[in-house]
Amino acid sequence: MSVYWSELVHRLTPYVPGEQPKLQNLVKLNTNENPFGPSPKVLAALQAEASESLRLYPDPDSSRLKSAIAEYYGLQANQVFVGNGSDEVLAHVFQALLKHDQPLLFPDISYSFYPVYCGLYGIEFETVPLNAQFEIAIDDYLRPNGGIIFPNPNAPTGVPMPLSDVERLLKANTHSVVVVDEAYVDFGTQSAVSLVNQYPNLLVTHTYSKSRSLAGLRVGYALGNATLIQALIRIKDSFNSYPLDRFAEAGAIAAIQDEAYFEQTRQQVIVAREALVADLQSLGFEVLPSGANFIFAKHPKHAGEQLAAGLRDQAVIVRHFKKPARILDFLRITIGNPSQNQALMQALRTLL
Amino acid sequence: MSVYWSELVHRLTPYVPGEQPKLQNLVKLNTNENPFGPSPKVLAALQAEASESLRLYPDPDSSRLKSAIAEYYGLQANQVFVGNGSDEVLAHVFQALLKHDQPLLFPDISYSFYPVYCGLYGIEFETVPLNAQFEIAIDDYLRPNGGIIFPNPNAPTGVPMPLSDVERLLKANTHSVVVVDEAYVDFGTQSAVSLVNQYPNLLVTHTYSKSRSLAGLRVGYALGNATLIQALIRIKDSFNSYPLDRFAEAGAIAAIQDEAYFEQTRQQVIVAREALVADLQSLGFEVLPSGANFIFAKHPKHAGEQLAAGLRDQAVIVRHFKKPARILDFLRITIGNPSQNQALMQALRTLL
Repeated sequence: MSVYWSELVHRLTPYVPGEQPKLQNLVKLNTNENPFGPSPKVLAALQAEASESLRLYPDPDSSRLKSAIAEYYGLQANQVFVGNGSDEVLAHVFQALLKHDQPLLFPDISYSFYPVYCGLYGIEFETVPLNAQFEIAIDDYLRPNGGIIFPNPNAPTGVPMPLSDVERLLKANTHSVVVVDEAYVDFGTQSAVSLVNQYPNLLVTHTYSKSRSLAGLRVGYALGNATLIQALIRIKDSFNSYPLDRFAEAGAIAAIQDEAYFEQTRQQVIVAREALVADLQSLGFEVLPSGANFIFAKHPKHAGEQLAAGLRDQAVIVRHFKKPARILDFLRITIGNPSQNQALMQALRTLL
Repeated sequence: MSVYWSELVHRLTPYVPGEQPKLQNLVKLNTNENPFGPSPKVLAALQAEASESLRLYPDPDSSRLKSAIAEYYGLQANQVFVGNGSDEVLAHVFQALLKHDQPLLFPDISYSFYPVYCGLYGIEFETVPLNAQFEIAIDDYLRPNGGIIFPNPNAPTGVPMPLSDVERLLKANTHSVVVVDEAYVDFGTQSAVSLVNQYPNLLVTHTYSKSRSLAGLRVGYALGNATLIQALIRIKDSFNSYPLDRFAEAGAIAAIQDEAYFEQTRQQVIVAREALVADLQSLGFEVLPSGANFIFAKHPKHAGEQLAAGLRDQAVIVRHFKKPARILDFLRITIGNPSQNQALMQALRTLL
């Protein structure tokens, strides 16, 4: 607290990201990183950027990257916005498109950054409870609102929503922006990108941090009607002209152009997830259906907090959320590579 | 314009950065980049980052970089804030520290992003005219205010303010934050970093884009009392947990540790500036005193806009500002390498 702080700073409750421990030899299953490294073609493109031209600013519009992403999805470049990680993209989305007289709606159990953005930009919001199966119930969102945002698959539950439900929502809610935050969509959830040309109020956000194995590079993007994208550009150009550095643009272009590597690694993650789910169920865990590279699981006889602590004692880190109460006994576990997943199972067996 | 836009978006007047033309063989003297590439040690550090570990998030706190910067200046790590370029740092500074009941003060001729940030965050401001010599006159700032910000050396004039004036202002203005934006300070202007431990309301901002030759990497930082830094961290953690990617942190650490390269290249820029000033004066240009890696010059017989256009026809790009009226005939010219500066002179001679 300080007289020098703007009044807003006193009121903020910042987001707390998953821990990034600096220890070696951890089995790190707490922040949903990809167990596979980036494509060799990406690494080659990044190597080439370490050159004299770093003295020059990057392209402030990241035009080549926008074109590459547009081409990948069969869209136009003016339907693409890029940012320094999808968290930055989401921040701009909240400020540019979700602040209206009516409250923003999002699920009560969801990405915990959403209420933080609302605090940062003074956006009124109401949370909508998930149903008993931890699903987003579309009908509950059909009420006055200034915007709707939800992850699909949802976080931290991993539960996917069928595309037909997303479209039903879009048909019924035309007066405000609907943001589908698809950070984890590539691991077996249906994407709403195919609806972008039909619904002018649909915005879909993606990240390179998960299925593209580039959490360390910080690239995210949004796809939507050019008018929505224009609002994001106006905010971005009032905030930071050059959010993507030369490495980020070059690496992201190479990644989206290496479809074979992407397809292979995401399938491997999906296969590993299904194996891990079966293993956990054999230990008595209840696992929610997952369309993500993580699962949300609880054991009927063991408290989540104690399991997380017991795993940590064995150098396995998963994520445990202390609220809301309904998810207190769940663990959010990132799908690792086979040896990481085995280490997890081995550690869990000692705790049950 | 769209019903989907937040009301703010309609009102914004975004910043327009200097052009980043995609043509080859331009003599690009319009965005104050360093004519020398980054240090070979920086390039080696960056090469090493193109690895499998890019699948992992970077350190959200950039702790190693903060420590390296703190060590360089003889400060503590909690007196350092880092961001995705100094424009992002400045955006957070405006939101975190400069929004108060009284208006923010800055020079009428200054970095044109300042009023844009004010628009983004709803900050009242008043501009204070430079004096007849295009200097910031400290006494004009001694009036009720919610904060003061100015570049030193000023942009786009390049005119430096002596440290004694900065300290006089700090002594007289203790109730609000004074931000000294030292983007160009390493080219011969006295830095206020030496005052950080004495004045709890002083914040100094720096960038890697100029004297560190890393405009393409996007790293900036702020130095100040830990309480001021804490406000910036609260905003950052409500906006984007991981603003610096793995390349940015590694490259910035290597750069600040290669003092010999830094010292050599900045001296070469200073020497080249003095030579260019003499050459321009010999053609009849009036050149303002510069403590930066650019100069601000006008010719008594030729309009600035026409000179800029004539240079462009010869593939030499400098920056011309269409307002305010007082600087309409000035050109802002980045100091290039000797051959670029010669190309500039040659092109100018054809126009006079």
